[in-house]
Amino acid sequence: MVRAIEWRDTPRPMIRLIDQTLLPLEERYLEVTRVDDLVAAIASLAVRGAPALGAAGALGVVLAMHQGAEEGWSDLKLQAEIERIRVARPTAVNLAWGVDRVRGAVGAGVAAVLGLARGLVAEDEAANRHLSRLGADWILARTGREQVRVVTHCNTGALATTAWGTAYGIIHELHDRGNLGLVYADETRPLLQGARLTSWELHKDGIPHVVEADGAAASTILRGLVDVAIIGADRITANGDTANKVGSVALALACARAGIPFVVAAPSSTVDMTTKTGDHIVIEERDGDEVVTLGGRRLAPEGVRGFNPAFDVTPHDLIAAIVTEKGIVEPATAPDPELLAAVAG
Amino acid sequence: MVRAIEWRDTPRPMIRLIDQTLLPLEERYLEVTRVDDLVAAIASLAVRGAPALGAAGALGVVLAMHQGAEEGWSDLKLQAEIERIRVARPTAVNLAWGVDRVRGAVGAGVAAVLGLARGLVAEDEAANRHLSRLGADWILARTGREQVRVVTHCNTGALATTAWGTAYGIIHELHDRGNLGLVYADETRPLLQGARLTSWELHKDGIPHVVEADGAAASTILRGLVDVAIIGADRITANGDTANKVGSVALALACARAGIPFVVAAPSSTVDMTTKTGDHIVIEERDGDEVVTLGGRRLAPEGVRGFNPAFDVTPHDLIAAIVTEKGIVEPATAPDPELLAAVAG
Repeated sequence: MVRAIEWRDTPRPMIRLIDQTLLPLEERYLEVTRVDDLVAAIASLAVRGAPALGAAGALGVVLAMHQGAEEGWSDLKLQAEIERIRVARPTAVNLAWGVDRVRGAVGAGVAAVLGLARGLVAEDEAANRHLSRLGADWILARTGREQVRVVTHCNTGALATTAWGTAYGIIHELHDRGNLGLVYADETRPLLQGARLTSWELHKDGIPHVVEADGAAASTILRGLVDVAIIGADRITANGDTANKVGSVALALACARAGIPFVVAAPSSTVDMTTKTGDHIVIEERDGDEVVTLGGRRLAPEGVRGFNPAFDVTPHDLIAAIVTEKGIVEPATAPDPELLAAVAG
Repeated sequence: MVRAIEWRDTPRPMIRLIDQTLLPLEERYLEVTRVDDLVAAIASLAVRGAPALGAAGALGVVLAMHQGAEEGWSDLKLQAEIERIRVARPTAVNLAWGVDRVRGAVGAGVAAVLGLARGLVAEDEAANRHLSRLGADWILARTGREQVRVVTHCNTGALATTAWGTAYGIIHELHDRGNLGLVYADETRPLLQGARLTSWELHKDGIPHVVEADGAAASTILRGLVDVAIIGADRITANGDTANKVGSVALALACARAGIPFVVAAPSSTVDMTTKTGDHIVIEERDGDEVVTLGGRRLAPEGVRGFNPAFDVTPHDLIAAIVTEKGIVEPATAPDPELLAAVAG
C-alpha cells in the first residue's frame, strides 16, 4: 500500500507526499520542508482527497513550526503561515478541519502537535480498515458469491485517504480474503481519477481489473458482468442521499434495474446530519475547460463551452448499504429518517 | 449543413468527403479519385456512420468505373476493385448494402450507376428530414414546452448520415422551428464523437449547446435540466430493444426515473425484424487501447487493459418513442411485439 502523505524526521523534518499529478506515468515523491511548497502542492492537486487533505492540514502545522523555529518567526507570523495552509483550497473543508484538530496544541510544542497529527492519520486508517471489513462481510453475505465482481467509480484508495481507502478499501479487503473476482474501474472523466489513480493502485496491489469508459458502466451492470457497485462519498445527508463524483448515480440506477446492491463507503465524518436531503446540496460546477480540453489539447471546437458539475446525488432509495466504521445502514429497504445517526461521526 | 460525402464531376470525377479524423481542429476535404484512396479513407474512419458508408459504397462503384475507364481495366478487374470497396470495413454492413444497391446497373453505364447512387443519397436525406419533422412534432406535443432542452449522445448528424441527420436531425428541426432551448452533448468516450463531431456540427449550425462528460448525463436529467433525451440507433430489434453507442442506456434509465421521454430516431432500415430481442444482439468489443490511451498518450498504467464494448442495449420499456420516416411507435406504453413492423424498412 502506498502512503500518499506522511511525516518524516530524517534526513530532515518534512512532509513526504506522492505527486498525484504525475501518476500513473511517473511515481515521484515530493519532500516538502516549507509552507510555500505545501501550499503549492495542495493548489496543484499533487495531494488530493478529503482525508489526505486533513492530514496535510494537521502535518502542515508541524511543518510550519519547524520552519518557524529555523527562521525565527514570531508567534504572529507562525499563526499567519498556519492560516495560509488552512485556506490553500477554499472548498476543501478537511484541510481546515485537519489544521483545527491540532492547532490548539501549538503552545505545547512541536512533539505534541506531531503526536496529534499522527493520531489523526492513524484514526483515519483504522476507520478505513474497519469499514472495509464490515463492507466486505456485508457484500459476501448479500451476494452469496465466492468471487465478487465489482464496479467502482473515481478514486477512493490510499491516494485519496491517508491509507488503505474507503470503497477501494473494501475491494482490497475482498482481494485479501481471496473473494475478489475482477474490478471494473470507471475512468472517471473529466479528470480521469479512475484511469490514472485507481488503476495505478489496483495495479500496484496486484488486484485484477480493467478500465472502462464511464458510459460503459451501466451496461456492464445490466449485462450481469458485476455483482456489486462500491463507491465513496463526498457527503451523505440525513436521509441517506449521497453526493459523490459525477457519474455515480448512473451506476445506482443500473444496479436498481439489475437487482444488485449499490454500496456507499465513507468515514462516519462524511455523514452530515445537518443537511436533511440531497435536494439541499449545491452542486459545485468546475471549469468547463476540464471537459473540452485534455492535456492542453482541445477536444471540442474553439468557443464551445464545457458543462462540468463536479458531483451528482444518488437518492437513498437506490442505495442498498451505507458503510462507515460505525456500522452499516440500508436506506433502500429501511428508509428511516433517523437511520443515519447510527453511523454518523 | 455540411455534406460529409458527395459526388463531384468537376474539376474531375471524384468523391469529396470531409476528413472526420481531423475534426474539430481542422476542416479538410479529401478529393478521392482512386479506389485505393477510398478504401484508405474508409479504413481510417475519415468517413464513418452507417448511412454515410452506404453512400461511400454506392459512389465507390461510380469511382471504380471512372478509374477503370481511364486505366483500361478488364471487367474482372473492375469487379475485384468494387469488391475491395465492399469489404473495406468488415463490420459496416451499410458499405456492402450501398455497393449492392447499384452494382447491378454497372452494365448500363456510369451515368446509370451515378443516378442510382445519387438516388440513394437523396432517399437518405429525405427519410432523415421526414423523421425529424415527425420527431419534433411528437416531442413538442409530449413535453408541452416552447423551448425544449435536449440531451444527446454520440454523433447522429450530417457527418454520420449523408445529410441532415437522425437524432441530430430532430434537434436541428426543433432549432429551425424556434423551439430549441439548449443541447447537452455527451462527449461520448472513448472516441469522443460528441465532443469532436456533434459539437462541431452544432457550432456550425448555430445551435446553442454545451459539452458534458458522459458521467454527467444522468444527473443532468435527474436535476431537471433537460426535457428529452434523443439518440440514434445501430440496430432496433423486433420488440423495440435498441442497440446504440455505449453510454446510451444510462440516459434511458435516468429519463425513466425523471419521468421525461427517451426518444430513439433512425431510418426504418435500422429496424431488424429478424432479431427478436436485445438479448440476441452480440455486443462488439473494440480494442481496449481506445480507452486507456488518448492521442497516443497513455491514460492508465502500462499493462492495464481497457474494457471497450462498442454499444449497449436499451430495453424497450425505457423507450418512450421510436421515430423512423415511416412513423412513430411507443414501446414503453404499448409494448406490442408486432408494433415495430409498422415503422420497419
